[in-house]
Amino acid sequence: MADILHRIGVKASLDHVYRALTTRDGLAGWWTTNTQGESKVGGEITFRFSTDGKDIGGFNMKVLELQPARRVLWEVMDGPEEWIGTRVSFELKQEDDWAIVLFKHLGWKEPVEFMHHCSTKWATFLLSLKSLVETGSGAPDPKDVKVSNWH
Amino acid sequence: MADILHRIGVKASLDHVYRALTTRDGLAGWWTTNTQGESKVGGEITFRFSTDGKDIGGFNMKVLELQPARRVLWEVMDGPEEWIGTRVSFELKQEDDWAIVLFKHLGWKEPVEFMHHCSTKWATFLLSLKSLVETGSGAPDPKDVKVSNWH
Repeated sequence: MADILHRIGVKASLDHVYRALTTRDGLAGWWTTNTQGESKVGGEITFRFSTDGKDIGGFNMKVLELQPARRVLWEVMDGPEEWIGTRVSFELKQEDDWAIVLFKHLGWKEPVEFMHHCSTKWATFLLSLKSLVETGSGAPDPKDVKVSNWH
Repeated sequence: MADILHRIGVKASLDHVYRALTTRDGLAGWWTTNTQGESKVGGEITFRFSTDGKDIGGFNMKVLELQPARRVLWEVMDGPEEWIGTRVSFELKQEDDWAIVLFKHLGWKEPVEFMHHCSTKWATFLLSLKSLVETGSGAPDPKDVKVSNWH
């Protein structure tokens, strides 16, 4: 098993960051504009991505945990084969006037090349989350940061 | 043991990317402007970082492997305790008109919070490498992308 790990700090309240992780508008503001579903425990959220207006796939996440201003945990129900069954966790904590996000994408079976790619993309999306909360403007798909020939 | 993994694609030749990983000017153009030493097998390169003009530490890397347009491998000789003895690897390959960089920071003893931070920072520095090679301008320390209260 292998995990993707990241840490960002957002100059904002924990509540503000938590809302960006647990509302459709929030998620659509930093990950992908095409976000559907409702963030409630046991519910499913669908994230779709596109290139040049063409759908290129996405992820269905089941919401496993919602602890306000503390933790959000999803399980991947559908998407690329390597993602299915993995879990995505956001842990929040306060440090001075920073909201710290410890991010983990847990349980990759193998450290395949696609995992390298997803690690870099997660970093860009977490910086998009930081920007959304701090400035009101993120870089969700389709205006996300392109890191390679893979998107 | 835990590893940080990333993948970027650079619209440039493998040779151009390899030079940015193996010359002092190249390294100073995307990681830190305060880069000293010579990139030769068995040699040591010193990278120092600063905040507001004040030195905040850095890394000494021993060059273990230099395979032109293929691979660069370093071992961390000095720096933060968690880094010492870990290895940093850049594997290069061509895909169409892209130079692909598979990055690995291998051998963290524990997935500590600092590892989360370094994973996110590596992503920003690899995108700085991509920008340097594609546009001539990167974002090395001290003008690097700040991701949190930790830098």
